[in-house]
Amino acid sequence: MAEITDKSLVLGIDVGGQSSKLGVVDARGEILVQSVISSLQTDIDSYITDLTDAINDLIGKVGGTSKIRGIGIGAPNGNYYKGTIEYAPNLKWCYDSSGKPQVIQFAKMISSRVGVPVTVTNDANAAGIGEMTYGIAKGMKNFIMITLGTGVGSGIVIDGKMVYGHDGFAGELGHTIAVKDGRKCNCGLRGCLETYCSAIGVSRTVTEVLANSDKPSILRDLDQTKPISSYEVFKAAEQGDELAKEIFKITGELMGTAFADFIKFSAPEAIVLFGGLAKAGKYLDEHIIRSMNENQLPIWKNKVKLLHSTLKDSDAAILGASALAWEL
Amino acid sequence: MAEITDKSLVLGIDVGGQSSKLGVVDARGEILVQSVISSLQTDIDSYITDLTDAINDLIGKVGGTSKIRGIGIGAPNGNYYKGTIEYAPNLKWCYDSSGKPQVIQFAKMISSRVGVPVTVTNDANAAGIGEMTYGIAKGMKNFIMITLGTGVGSGIVIDGKMVYGHDGFAGELGHTIAVKDGRKCNCGLRGCLETYCSAIGVSRTVTEVLANSDKPSILRDLDQTKPISSYEVFKAAEQGDELAKEIFKITGELMGTAFADFIKFSAPEAIVLFGGLAKAGKYLDEHIIRSMNENQLPIWKNKVKLLHSTLKDSDAAILGASALAWEL
Repeated sequence: MAEITDKSLVLGIDVGGQSSKLGVVDARGEILVQSVISSLQTDIDSYITDLTDAINDLIGKVGGTSKIRGIGIGAPNGNYYKGTIEYAPNLKWCYDSSGKPQVIQFAKMISSRVGVPVTVTNDANAAGIGEMTYGIAKGMKNFIMITLGTGVGSGIVIDGKMVYGHDGFAGELGHTIAVKDGRKCNCGLRGCLETYCSAIGVSRTVTEVLANSDKPSILRDLDQTKPISSYEVFKAAEQGDELAKEIFKITGELMGTAFADFIKFSAPEAIVLFGGLAKAGKYLDEHIIRSMNENQLPIWKNKVKLLHSTLKDSDAAILGASALAWEL
Repeated sequence: MAEITDKSLVLGIDVGGQSSKLGVVDARGEILVQSVISSLQTDIDSYITDLTDAINDLIGKVGGTSKIRGIGIGAPNGNYYKGTIEYAPNLKWCYDSSGKPQVIQFAKMISSRVGVPVTVTNDANAAGIGEMTYGIAKGMKNFIMITLGTGVGSGIVIDGKMVYGHDGFAGELGHTIAVKDGRKCNCGLRGCLETYCSAIGVSRTVTEVLANSDKPSILRDLDQTKPISSYEVFKAAEQGDELAKEIFKITGELMGTAFADFIKFSAPEAIVLFGGLAKAGKYLDEHIIRSMNENQLPIWKNKVKLLHSTLKDSDAAILGASALAWEL
């Protein structure tokens, strides 16, 4: 570890639907200390209190705020231009007690309490920046990052720059419509890609596939009162379970079809996948790749790479978010 | 008109599926002379001969090649990086006599015959550059240009720059899938937006709607042996024809649904429409706007503008293509 001089470190925070991950990062991209808190608080004050406690705890461990150049945050619907989080359906504390969406002045709230500058972006954008700076997309100028977590997020890099768009919200590809009049999504729409290809989406597919078939399956032996995870489906597929493979086929085909259309937009060199579901590997990938090419124009058929993140799950988003803070 | 000094003019060419439009443009964006040739030749040599004859004719009228800084060309699947046209299904001369696609070295072929530098881009990109330089998108940093002609083209502007992507082909939004397993497209896919919302697409919808309904319609009185144009549908709608309005409803809803997903990609300030069909005005727009917002995330609902080109049909693409040539 290099000597910690003043302002030589940054702090990255990945705000997820279930938990928020924090880490202090040095200039070489090494995460020196890290921690995790819950994101399930129902009001913003409780969440901000828990988060600033965790931030101060980490900062204390590396020698105090004088060492910290800034804090970079990746959060669902995080707005790079305004430093806000708004309309994030997977975060309860983005809504008041009557369910009305609130604009959370996230950067300001944390900056005023911790006393260092703060910048915010979409969690998937942060993962994309992490991948471009330290991961598989290093040196790549045009790629689309797809994060498969509680939801499906995306970060679009064009000419080496993250796309923020007119208002700072660009890259909500998880809410493009994968199935017309399909499953109801938290965002209010129907058939969003996220309702099929997120962790929750796959669990919904498991329920559907088991209900619509009378084939035997290892998955039927699992506790049906709680959602079956993509990891459990993966384990079943590894044992040759036909219904488990069918679930990845359905999921992969929807992803590939969606990716084919994303490619028609920005003509990327690669699609980079990140997150738990991406680990289903061959069971998912063969269907994504086939469907991505079947639905593609001749100019891009079999030309766009499907890659997997090379960063550890928790590291990618922390590193990406922290990379933003170097620019502060 | 300002005095024509050496290299003070550019020549813009819009290569369309039916015809190619040429114009010599001065630094103030005035088209000094222009002409039109057919694009329907079946072999590339005939087309290039006709085109270079037309170019030389126009250049002669303004005082010879010494006056021309360069030629900018907008063409279907025109590649900005390589100066080529390839896999353009609406251009017969892009395929050899056996129907095999050819890579046309378009910039090189014209440059070597005319003796001035040549640059090529997608026809819709050229229209977008024209709109950004001289039209309704002047000063706008983030917008999506949609051209409604023989096909449906698109040019995506992010942070004031045209998006070309990894390979120079970015922005093929006319071939995103609007209807799963829908109409067969020239590109080989099914259900492309272009098969519903281009001039030809609307004619196909007319045929379907007339066949599937027994309601009376002015459109039934037209010659059914040739395609019915969107202008004829517009005239019928103006006379209160219910089936004509239904045709615009179907077309507008498909466009609005597609635009909603495009917005989720790059968060533009506006979608800018250009081309014959766009002139259906209120009959089309009300359905585009409604459907664009019904299929939108809360962050963009009722926030993204639908605009119409303010440039004359032939001018936009010529001006856009010519604007490229100033950079030569």
